[in-house]
Amino acid sequence: MIKVGIIGGTGYTGVELLRLLAVHPQAELKVITSRAEAGSKIADLFPNLRGFVELAFSEPDPKLLAGCDVVFSATPNGVAMTHARKLLEAGVRLIDIAADFRLSDPKLWEKWYRMPHACPDLLSEAVYGLPEINRKRIRGARLIANPGCYPTAIQLGFLPLLEQGLIDPGQLIADAKSGVSGAGRKAEVHTLFAEVSDNFKAYAVEGHRHWPEICQELECVSGRPVGLTFVPHLTPMVRGIHATLYCRLTDRGADVQAVFEERYRAEPFVDVLAAGSHPDTRSVRASNVCRIAVHRPQGGDTVVVLSVIDNLVKGAAGQAVQNMNIAFGLEETAGLNAPAVLP
Amino acid sequence: MIKVGIIGGTGYTGVELLRLLAVHPQAELKVITSRAEAGSKIADLFPNLRGFVELAFSEPDPKLLAGCDVVFSATPNGVAMTHARKLLEAGVRLIDIAADFRLSDPKLWEKWYRMPHACPDLLSEAVYGLPEINRKRIRGARLIANPGCYPTAIQLGFLPLLEQGLIDPGQLIADAKSGVSGAGRKAEVHTLFAEVSDNFKAYAVEGHRHWPEICQELECVSGRPVGLTFVPHLTPMVRGIHATLYCRLTDRGADVQAVFEERYRAEPFVDVLAAGSHPDTRSVRASNVCRIAVHRPQGGDTVVVLSVIDNLVKGAAGQAVQNMNIAFGLEETAGLNAPAVLP
Amino acid sequence: MIKVGIIGGTGYTGVELLRLLAVHPQAELKVITSRAEAGSKIADLFPNLRGFVELAFSEPDPKLLAGCDVVFSATPNGVAMTHARKLLEAGVRLIDIAADFRLSDPKLWEKWYRMPHACPDLLSEAVYGLPEINRKRIRGARLIANPGCYPTAIQLGFLPLLEQGLIDPGQLIADAKSGVSGAGRKAEVHTLFAEVSDNFKAYAVEGHRHWPEICQELECVSGRPVGLTFVPHLTPMVRGIHATLYCRLTDRGADVQAVFEERYRAEPFVDVLAAGSHPDTRSVRASNVCRIAVHRPQGGDTVVVLSVIDNLVKGAAGQAVQNMNIAFGLEETAGLNAPAVLP
Amino acid sequence: MIKVGIIGGTGYTGVELLRLLAVHPQAELKVITSRAEAGSKIADLFPNLRGFVELAFSEPDPKLLAGCDVVFSATPNGVAMTHARKLLEAGVRLIDIAADFRLSDPKLWEKWYRMPHACPDLLSEAVYGLPEINRKRIRGARLIANPGCYPTAIQLGFLPLLEQGLIDPGQLIADAKSGVSGAGRKAEVHTLFAEVSDNFKAYAVEGHRHWPEICQELECVSGRPVGLTFVPHLTPMVRGIHATLYCRLTDRGADVQAVFEERYRAEPFVDVLAAGSHPDTRSVRASNVCRIAVHRPQGGDTVVVLSVIDNLVKGAAGQAVQNMNIAFGLEETAGLNAPAVLP
Repeated sequence: MIKVGIIGGTGYTGVELLRLLAVHPQAELKVITSRAEAGSKIADLFPNLRGFVELAFSEPDPKLLAGCDVVFSATPNGVAMTHARKLLEAGVRLIDIAADFRLSDPKLWEKWYRMPHACPDLLSEAVYGLPEINRKRIRGARLIANPGCYPTAIQLGFLPLLEQGLIDPGQLIADAKSGVSGAGRKAEVHTLFAEVSDNFKAYAVEGHRHWPEICQELECVSGRPVGLTFVPHLTPMVRGIHATLYCRLTDRGADVQAVFEERYRAEPFVDVLAAGSHPDTRSVRASNVCRIAVHRPQGGDTVVVLSVIDNLVKGAAGQAVQNMNIAFGLEETAGLNAPAVLP
Repeated sequence: MIKVGIIGGTGYTGVELLRLLAVHPQAELKVITSRAEAGSKIADLFPNLRGFVELAFSEPDPKLLAGCDVVFSATPNGVAMTHARKLLEAGVRLIDIAADFRLSDPKLWEKWYRMPHACPDLLSEAVYGLPEINRKRIRGARLIANPGCYPTAIQLGFLPLLEQGLIDPGQLIADAKSGVSGAGRKAEVHTLFAEVSDNFKAYAVEGHRHWPEICQELECVSGRPVGLTFVPHLTPMVRGIHATLYCRLTDRGADVQAVFEERYRAEPFVDVLAAGSHPDTRSVRASNVCRIAVHRPQGGDTVVVLSVIDNLVKGAAGQAVQNMNIAFGLEETAGLNAPAVLP
Repeated sequence: MIKVGIIGGTGYTGVELLRLLAVHPQAELKVITSRAEAGSKIADLFPNLRGFVELAFSEPDPKLLAGCDVVFSATPNGVAMTHARKLLEAGVRLIDIAADFRLSDPKLWEKWYRMPHACPDLLSEAVYGLPEINRKRIRGARLIANPGCYPTAIQLGFLPLLEQGLIDPGQLIADAKSGVSGAGRKAEVHTLFAEVSDNFKAYAVEGHRHWPEICQELECVSGRPVGLTFVPHLTPMVRGIHATLYCRLTDRGADVQAVFEERYRAEPFVDVLAAGSHPDTRSVRASNVCRIAVHRPQGGDTVVVLSVIDNLVKGAAGQAVQNMNIAFGLEETAGLNAPAVLP
Repeated sequence: MIKVGIIGGTGYTGVELLRLLAVHPQAELKVITSRAEAGSKIADLFPNLRGFVELAFSEPDPKLLAGCDVVFSATPNGVAMTHARKLLEAGVRLIDIAADFRLSDPKLWEKWYRMPHACPDLLSEAVYGLPEINRKRIRGARLIANPGCYPTAIQLGFLPLLEQGLIDPGQLIADAKSGVSGAGRKAEVHTLFAEVSDNFKAYAVEGHRHWPEICQELECVSGRPVGLTFVPHLTPMVRGIHATLYCRLTDRGADVQAVFEERYRAEPFVDVLAAGSHPDTRSVRASNVCRIAVHRPQGGDTVVVLSVIDNLVKGAAGQAVQNMNIAFGLEETAGLNAPAVLP
């Protein structure tokens, strides 16, 4: 059994991680820390875990964490980097579900996250944990940067086309819609039920922190500079991301459906739907799957890709477990093979 | 492996049953029938099951069903009773998730369901499948009447008090709120999103079909006539029932909290919360658990019981699987031990 | 034109008051105060008011307020009482939409609201602003305590039966369901979209602040002690209260439908539906109407009353405008005669 | 008073039209027809109209309709065209809220609406009722084709840029999100609450009927062929359209904010927000306003326009009333000047 620690864990990513680990056949939760909730039982905060998780939150204690095989950091940005060096030195693998290790350029990171980075030298070691691209590097990794939710849905949608050089990387548009759990479990007015329900809006059109992350990774794939317009929207649902992607085909003869099917044939968590399909977010609710459909409206040279994930699973906690499975050489789908909850 | 057949299965109870059976360690889906969808793949209708269920819907064929060990009927009322005799004669156990076998009095059944009963003689054999009351009888049963969703939540809430004779059975009030999936997957105006969302209403105050079912069972428990006022409400959520129960304590010295805790201590799927708690429906979403809290506001002689279930799981498909497990001597929790999905 | 001031006004009651006053034919908004938002334009906070309200929030300035004919206090509890004496001395009428003047007994107020009352001597002057009971007293009132949202829906439902002495006042049950806007526009975790959506729960079963308010007023009506069990529930909708009321008829021959119709025949904002009806909350959304239906399930002696209001209108801002209209001798329905918004 | 008739009127557009007309100072509802509901009172179907609309639905009787000054057709596509000639001959103006007169090319209409057109000769007379473009032609019009909901939001967003020739008309993208009321009040499975709630999906990516309508009108404005990719999405809210528009600036020095502000300065129902804003759909809920914000992310040459309307008001019934006001020389805002309902 792999001994697991969690830093943070009072947010939605935390409770989702606990839900998944509670039934993982090869993982055992050893410690979960929260300064704010230290001493209180996890199942008192999240009653869905009654009978599954007996642990209480504890103060962040380096010694306890050092006894784990792997630690997940499910904290706000800027916390994991303060724990990273000690954990790695103690031989513990670290999977950061926040953004501390996602950008390889420390300057760029500091610009977008508006704080100094605590361990810029570790950025080059960190592996960006999108298994569909980096599976091999994840295998031996000590430090894994779990991708953002939008970046996961968007990258998986553009990937096959960019890899094959079929589209113009300078004209990418990602119109993305997220459920409100993506904003976290923080006391804020703008995510109150009475603000968000029966309402729809875009936000951060001028620049969202996931934009440089997506650009960085797509440029790796494409080998060329990427011009991406990314508009996120807040949607009155709890879970789910729906990315609607627009790009221009440079090879009009390409069979884009076949390109997607081939690219993802062997992927356990990417499901390419039949041509003409429209995936809905509930078809992946509470599951680690990304479902994708690809269209060419009116047979033109604009390709529309529809990509859906559960932001808390494939967009956060589920992908983190997938990364753990890969890093430790377990079955990649261990603990992640329940069907989505529909309706 | 137990060979399972499903009659019906294009509704919400059907897809939920499939979701649960897909990961059940000792059940194997052999046949699923639907006249309307015969020939089409299940996973085309319910894409959450892609990769889990390869079967297509077939015409209801008695021979195919006769080769199963157990058949679940997930159809509208009035269908299971037309299949029952043949299945039983073929040695197949039948678990009806609809209402055909819930009332033991054929006259009462025909009054409330407004059709003649096809096999009134089987009503006396049918076991009412609420394991918390009838576990022993379910063990050997050939024909199980799976309880209604409201009746499950309401009975589990009144049960300990009635068994102990602590309340006046003549003055029971059940104010129950259901998610919209309880109305089924039928094309109807009154359950459209634009009718139900941001809206709340009572319905069927004059008499709901679950009322005689609840009265029948509570009278068995109480041994006395029951006076029940039952008001169901339609709530703008997909899943979940919240029953708020009111009754009058006849023994003011009773420790009602202790009564509930003792009654349900050994029950795998009933969870009594600490005194003063307020269970929310999401704490049981997609799980087979009923969570209960009991209150005596201002220390008076009115007891308020709060009882929540997922109407599609403990209120339908999950309880049906629990009944199958018991009937076949499996571990009672087999296939039913994933935590609830929160948020 | 009546010169209107508003203290507070950054919450949901405030924006609703502004929406109503913006089109009121005889009211003119002169000043609106908010410490937190002083200097910023109202329409920047609430863009629905762009083109309707040009004013900016100002610091609470007693002189500005003293120049008004009427001041609405749309603040948290405990603020209006600090302004009351000065305003009254300046000849300004005060309508408090919070709870500061709702309980006539200062001790009881201090027990439930957990702070000392700033002007207990004014409690006896304050008129409880439920026009259906106190219309005459409201006419000349200087100080009006606008009723709570739950108390409005619940009192209007019990009123006809208690006035006629047809029910046992010692056995009243009010099972009430509220939209989330009732919790206010405050940054809190428990009213986040991801906490409340697709979820349902009871709260404050042990005792809610509206309980003594309802009891006080119902005892006035009944002339006898009242035994009330009140259970509020949080419902995943923005607006609306649905009160389901249970009581025991002492006169089994009473024609309860006729009693309700007669009682409310002349009331502009109470609408008694035909026997057998089920009012839904959207039928009063954004309007000042209370719709009521009355039932006797199975013809028994339990009466079930269904009473719906919009918590922000008849339950707060609309009733406040109605009280202003009455207090100043205007047409009672002025500014309040738009139909509800459905769907 | 203008005598008004309504054909249809049992759908969401119908009830919204009734809500608006009920308080219109210069319109009087004379007749409303519905074959299915003939004889039943309007307020029984739509209880929000109790006290406002006393009329009952009647059979479609040409004589009754011929006595009106204007008839609104709020029916499914294909009905208004069967009434048009008789009404016009009787001197009645016809405002069709469905699609029968929106496309000027009968062949194109028949291709997209899959039926023969009953009066193709009237198509050239019909005025496309988008007042922001066609106000002058609407003034004398006998036959007005009220625009679709998506086309209204999308055209108003592209209009200023196309008129000024600032963008490439060959590369327009409209990613639009609609509330579920846009699908109408029809008994269908795919718009049930339990299908749509907590879910998000695109639909009709291969081709939606509003696509040729938008193209036709944008080509009129632009004077050049238009290349438009249009992807509609179903959003779990009752009302509202949010169009996110992407286009490529050909004149990088253009001050797009100023262009929008100047274009719409005198428009009563188009509100251009400050630079950097993100309009939300609730800011126009139940009102006839279109709110627009314009962005250039990272200062590049991709312009992002955010345009929101209430699909039932500016996208249907409200715009129809606006067209009536213009056609009859009334104040354009008559009956349409209540603020949006927020929250």
